Amino acid sequence: MVEVFNYTNFVSSPCIGGVGPVSYPELELLTTKQEIINFTPAQLSHHSTPLYLSFRGRSFIRHHKIRDKISLCSVQFLALDLVFRSPDSKAMATSTILSDLGTEIIIPICAVVGILFSLFQWYLVSQVKLSPEKPADDGKNGFTEALIEEEEGINDHTVVQKCAEIQNAISEGATSFLFTEYQYVGVFMVIFAVLIFVFLGSVEGFSTSSKVCTYDTTKMCKPALMTAVFSTVSFLLGAITSVVSGFLGMKIATYANARTTLEARKGVGKAFIVAFRSGAVMGFLLAANGLLVLYITINLFKIYYGDDWEGLFESITGYGLGGSSMALFGRVGGGIYTKAADVGADLVGKVERNIPEDDPRNPAVIADNVGDNVGDIAGMGSDLFGSYAESSCAALVVASISSFGTTHDFTSMMYPLIVSSVGILVCLITTLFATDILEVKTVKQIEPSLKNQLIISTVLMTIGIAIVSWIALPSSFTIFNFGAQKVVKNWQLFLCVGVGLWAGLIIGFVTEYYTSNAYSPVQDVADSCRTGAATNVIFGLALGYKSVIIPIFAIAISIFVSFSFAAMYGVAVAALGMLSTIATGLAIDAYGPISDNAGGIAEMAGMSHRIRERTDALDAAGNTTAAIGKGFAIGSAALVSLALFGAFVSRAEITTVDVLTPKVFIGLLVGAMLPYWFSAMTMKSVGKAALKMVEEVRRQFNTIPGLMEGTAKPDYATCVKISTDASIKEMIPPGALVMLTPLIVGIFFGVETLSGVLAGSLVSGVQIAISASNTGGAWDNAKKYIEAGVSEHAQSLGPKGSDPHKAAVIGDTVGDPLKDTSGPSLNILIKLMAVESLVFAPFFATHGGLLFKLF
Amino acid sequence: MVEVFNYTNFVSSPCIGGVGPVSYPELELLTTKQEIINFTPAQLSHHSTPLYLSFRGRSFIRHHKIRDKISLCSVQFLALDLVFRSPDSKAMATSTILSDLGTEIIIPICAVVGILFSLFQWYLVSQVKLSPEKPADDGKNGFTEALIEEEEGINDHTVVQKCAEIQNAISEGATSFLFTEYQYVGVFMVIFAVLIFVFLGSVEGFSTSSKVCTYDTTKMCKPALMTAVFSTVSFLLGAITSVVSGFLGMKIATYANARTTLEARKGVGKAFIVAFRSGAVMGFLLAANGLLVLYITINLFKIYYGDDWEGLFESITGYGLGGSSMALFGRVGGGIYTKAADVGADLVGKVERNIPEDDPRNPAVIADNVGDNVGDIAGMGSDLFGSYAESSCAALVVASISSFGTTHDFTSMMYPLIVSSVGILVCLITTLFATDILEVKTVKQIEPSLKNQLIISTVLMTIGIAIVSWIALPSSFTIFNFGAQKVVKNWQLFLCVGVGLWAGLIIGFVTEYYTSNAYSPVQDVADSCRTGAATNVIFGLALGYKSVIIPIFAIAISIFVSFSFAAMYGVAVAALGMLSTIATGLAIDAYGPISDNAGGIAEMAGMSHRIRERTDALDAAGNTTAAIGKGFAIGSAALVSLALFGAFVSRAEITTVDVLTPKVFIGLLVGAMLPYWFSAMTMKSVGKAALKMVEEVRRQFNTIPGLMEGTAKPDYATCVKISTDASIKEMIPPGALVMLTPLIVGIFFGVETLSGVLAGSLVSGVQIAISASNTGGAWDNAKKYIEAGVSEHAQSLGPKGSDPHKAAVIGDTVGDPLKDTSGPSLNILIKLMAVESLVFAPFFATHGGLLFKLF
Repeated sequence: MVEVFNYTNFVSSPCIGGVGPVSYPELELLTTKQEIINFTPAQLSHHSTPLYLSFRGRSFIRHHKIRDKISLCSVQFLALDLVFRSPDSKAMATSTILSDLGTEIIIPICAVVGILFSLFQWYLVSQVKLSPEKPADDGKNGFTEALIEEEEGINDHTVVQKCAEIQNAISEGATSFLFTEYQYVGVFMVIFAVLIFVFLGSVEGFSTSSKVCTYDTTKMCKPALMTAVFSTVSFLLGAITSVVSGFLGMKIATYANARTTLEARKGVGKAFIVAFRSGAVMGFLLAANGLLVLYITINLFKIYYGDDWEGLFESITGYGLGGSSMALFGRVGGGIYTKAADVGADLVGKVERNIPEDDPRNPAVIADNVGDNVGDIAGMGSDLFGSYAESSCAALVVASISSFGTTHDFTSMMYPLIVSSVGILVCLITTLFATDILEVKTVKQIEPSLKNQLIISTVLMTIGIAIVSWIALPSSFTIFNFGAQKVVKNWQLFLCVGVGLWAGLIIGFVTEYYTSNAYSPVQDVADSCRTGAATNVIFGLALGYKSVIIPIFAIAISIFVSFSFAAMYGVAVAALGMLSTIATGLAIDAYGPISDNAGGIAEMAGMSHRIRERTDALDAAGNTTAAIGKGFAIGSAALVSLALFGAFVSRAEITTVDVLTPKVFIGLLVGAMLPYWFSAMTMKSVGKAALKMVEEVRRQFNTIPGLMEGTAKPDYATCVKISTDASIKEMIPPGALVMLTPLIVGIFFGVETLSGVLAGSLVSGVQIAISASNTGGAWDNAKKYIEAGVSEHAQSLGPKGSDPHKAAVIGDTVGDPLKDTSGPSLNILIKLMAVESLVFAPFFATHGGLLFKLF
Repeated sequence: MVEVFNYTNFVSSPCIGGVGPVSYPELELLTTKQEIINFTPAQLSHHSTPLYLSFRGRSFIRHHKIRDKISLCSVQFLALDLVFRSPDSKAMATSTILSDLGTEIIIPICAVVGILFSLFQWYLVSQVKLSPEKPADDGKNGFTEALIEEEEGINDHTVVQKCAEIQNAISEGATSFLFTEYQYVGVFMVIFAVLIFVFLGSVEGFSTSSKVCTYDTTKMCKPALMTAVFSTVSFLLGAITSVVSGFLGMKIATYANARTTLEARKGVGKAFIVAFRSGAVMGFLLAANGLLVLYITINLFKIYYGDDWEGLFESITGYGLGGSSMALFGRVGGGIYTKAADVGADLVGKVERNIPEDDPRNPAVIADNVGDNVGDIAGMGSDLFGSYAESSCAALVVASISSFGTTHDFTSMMYPLIVSSVGILVCLITTLFATDILEVKTVKQIEPSLKNQLIISTVLMTIGIAIVSWIALPSSFTIFNFGAQKVVKNWQLFLCVGVGLWAGLIIGFVTEYYTSNAYSPVQDVADSCRTGAATNVIFGLALGYKSVIIPIFAIAISIFVSFSFAAMYGVAVAALGMLSTIATGLAIDAYGPISDNAGGIAEMAGMSHRIRERTDALDAAGNTTAAIGKGFAIGSAALVSLALFGAFVSRAEITTVDVLTPKVFIGLLVGAMLPYWFSAMTMKSVGKAALKMVEEVRRQFNTIPGLMEGTAKPDYATCVKISTDASIKEMIPPGALVMLTPLIVGIFFGVETLSGVLAGSLVSGVQIAISASNTGGAWDNAKKYIEAGVSEHAQSLGPKGSDPHKAAVIGDTVGDPLKDTSGPSLNILIKLMAVESLVFAPFFATHGGLLFKLF
């Protein structure tokens, strides 16, 4: 039984009177800066043994660390709650409705269902044949029951041939880039794995003997050396899973793009289904794969760790670090790649040579389409996988030192994974709404259909969370809260997850409001193009700044609710709540670049204007969903970072991060600066890489005879190579900034300053990330608004080539690196620094702060 | 004598044994969350009486507030230092070399010297006659010993007439705007004064009886009601001084601008001297005036307060609030005015009508020149005056509860004012270097001459601070440090002031490096114009982000050093150190807009191209110094805000601001968002106001016949009115955001959340302010670099009207609101919220946090 006593229980224990100050060396005390805790041996004998007395999460009896010895004359407890556990504590552990066996079954089953569903979607997509023959499965899922009057050019077999060729080129380019990236990233992985092993191993001097557990000092835990080994292994596992996720996503996208183009001949509804299904393949594969690997890893590690949950989940944090560090390289490298190619292609092709976008004569056109796949697909896949892995790790670490962990209640421990498992089922049902229940037939239905996905999944998931919270949690339990224990009810935890989930939806819709050209903000920006590019840029920047307000309040409220109810565990599960519908989020997110590519292929294959219009309509909806996806990614990153930060602070054994100390304050100030430094690097990188691309494209136009006339083929491969080389080279400095900052700060300035840096970069980075991605999205859609000219207002600004349109194009180009490179990379900056600090926390706490130790 | 005992002194005092928990209600204890403090009556009798025992700045014996009662069995002190004062403590007070009488004399004398020097400079400027006759004082200061060969058109009397007319129009426009602004601001002042009185008076329920002092409970302090009255009075005094400072600055500038133009006929050196002297008039008048008013206020208040230093300096904080709130309206209103007129004039004049800048045919041209005076002169004058007043107040408040205050050591208390006094003398000597010792003769000497001002004043001031720290401080004293007392040596305080002073210089030079077109960053931005406006904007934004790095490290190091040595007092005096050379800073800062106006007048008066070239050369140097001035303003604002934040925290009796509590964290997150919200508002305001101006200018060109041909005069007054009305209307929402946020947060969420908001807005706002002002400065100078075409590289980008130049103009226009409206206003946002919180701290601490009290 877990009992919570108030300190008044103890003030009544009489002091062993009149002895004056006496030291009891055998009862060594832990006192922090803030607390004086005294107790007498008499107190311990009051209660049944084995019993341990924990005060703010720390045991009183600690043999391996002596911070201070205090005279033991009086008995004083200022603690709010004191938690006692007597040997019959297992009684409470069984109070979850879902049995441990049920948990052991439900998680892998959901993961497998997700994977199977994903494979089934893939099968459906593969039914669109990329060879010049009729689809084989007539009648299946309405593929040939198309509205004949809409069909266009479906009997032109050379087009199919061309599409297949282009798709091949894109796929090869993307594969070649990713393999090159993985070579560099592989070297990094090995170096960092060694670092993790050496740093964590050195905490206890590479000793192979067991140690007393940190939070439950009555027990022995596995040696720190083994935690170093397992952390290294889980780091590598996380890294590999992330890489595989990104790679699979890219493969799926490059498999689907040409198929979407071909279906667009049959109508916009058909094309939508293919693009959406392909997105779903990626979404479900990533979500289910991440869950399954994590689940298997935990179970395998458990064979060694047994009852040592502290050690087990400390090692598991490496999984999050691995996932996130790969995501960094994916996002930054991919982001630079895609924007260098995009900006380079546009500046020479559209501006100088006056040829349309995606024209096959443009040597950078393949690189541009490859970019969409490596940046928006592989990069984003790794990013969201990282968020998911990190929020799970953060929740598990905090849970392991809470009452779940101390009572070894498997089902409650696995609560975060069960939430994710149910999420997969919910998303599966949600997907059916888009593909089967509410079929898209016209252009106007596309955007509502995608938005419905968000709403449906959120509503269903709320029910799912309620059920999970009811069956998988005891009705009341205690949570570790920076030294204190906090009593939490299961309905409170439901609210924590729920608030995160709904905050995500709000952020999504606010993002949509500020970036979709259906509403006044983007229309205002478009209108400001009348007075030129300068006012467009000013209004766009102001829009981005303004769009930060509501999401920040949404995040703040989620944090306040979840933090107040269940401390850092609450924040971690709120992040998980936001990410619980990740499969749907990824599906509609991946849908965007696939449609974009489909449009590119249609143009390159020389398909008719009408088909291009259909793919453009798909793409326009994709732009907004991409912005929503980025909003989710940033919102969840903020919550995840805070949860990781909390876990770091706990693991580094800090109990307060007081802004009113110079060490913390300078950390806060410098931390708030880091996103600016990082953005400066990535934005300049895009600029430099784009410049190289411009030179190469110009060279080809000038030296290849007949290129402009379409009689000679451009050298696509060189452009792909330039983008690859430039992005690999340019991703190293920003990557180093993010990876080295926690190490340098931790080693030289110590954990207090590092806490400040993490908090500072979190609160500052979120704002820049949101404003950068919304500003970019708004400019892009303001341009599209003028181009489409659907309203009278829009027509007064257009057509293509008018002065306002030219001003809008300038805004769009400025927004490219903001929305696709620097903005989304900032999520990873804040998450990665936090998870890295968490992994290295024991090392920093033991050996860190050299500079202050020296002076 | 002040003695510092270690706690070991007391652990040896034996516990009154064996009595068990006993309460001594007559000895009520103050225990904070963090500390348990026990003592026995025996201890008190150990020492001579009257004696008080202070622990971390709080007395043990408190009769008016009981936080907790603890059993008094044992004696335990974890305090680092315990400070005792026996009645002979005055013995130490005389340990400053400078006597109290000396202090009473030195401060007003320095202030008067400053004012006299300023008047003398004004007299010299006034020798340039604005009526068509030869200067009267031939031979004086070399005015007619000019190099004859350089002189141009000095006998054209109609030009003098015209200049006088234009000057008159500008001066009238500026006066009319400021008076309109003051009407609104006056209403605000009255409302806010009432608010201060009501809120602060209600703290002790409008009781007129004396109360026990907060920090020295052995003494009685004046009633809270009187502090409310005096705070209100000092608020009004600060507001009026600020308004007068801004107004005088504007008057001086509009007096000097035409005189500079006329002197430019005689040569660049002459013109430089006039512009610089006029700047010095403003610099010295403001610095000396601010010092004098503050000094007199303190002495007058002291008549009532007598020994109650706590109450005295709490009321004085109102002075800082008054100064800063006026500065807010000045900066925001003036900033919107100047940029609306500037952008409006350029968009129609330069872009649509293709007439040169400052062409008299442009109806907005007078408004544009008025804008320079109300924005860059009056606004900046109020801003820096506010910083100066606030840093003095912050230092004085902290000092009043430190050993200076408890021993009533007048000279040490006045240390901040003595530093400022010596600063005036140092700046006086520095000015002579520019005007007499190292005379400027050629264009190339202008910028080095201005930069030398900074270096000379910093070097001299370092010596000055050393002397002041030696003679005006006891060799050792204690400083209040969030509940604890900290022992500080006088040389440590010298380092605190010095580190602030030199950090200012570093920030100045980094700003120069990133915004002057003599160095590669701006040249890179100019080069990026080759590929269009988009790359220009991308590179400019990246430059702004990058330019944040070193200043933030400089500020962080200053904070770390000063915070570590002398807690918040150290930070406050570091800010004062940065501002100690304010007279010189203001002089070179005001020099810029004066030169800018001089150029405008030359153009409007139809003076020769050669004269315009000379004023352009003055203006170019002024652009860089303006950026440096903004750097100083931001750097000092960061330090001031932190000091004010510290004072607020002390006054609200918070001892930790722990990021690991939900209340503080959400404050931090929302606080970091506020600068974005504020920037969105101000940037959009500029856009909207500019749009109105564009419409009016277009209307005049279309409806006034003969305007383009120069036969009819435009209606300048309407444009002035539009700018005035628009800026007054648009300054209200951002003003309300800044003024209401601390009130709303304090009243509804309480002091912890407010602490978070202040810290968040500080660390986030500094970054945006620096990057916005440097980005804007860089774009401006990149444009000027292409226009001037002095190097081969620059010529390859030019000339005026080329595509790269057009791209550069777009960047410049985007930068206008960033560098002159939203960027510099952010300083005031962070300072003002902090000082407002400080003034209302007792109210928030007593009645705040309603929302949490209700739920």
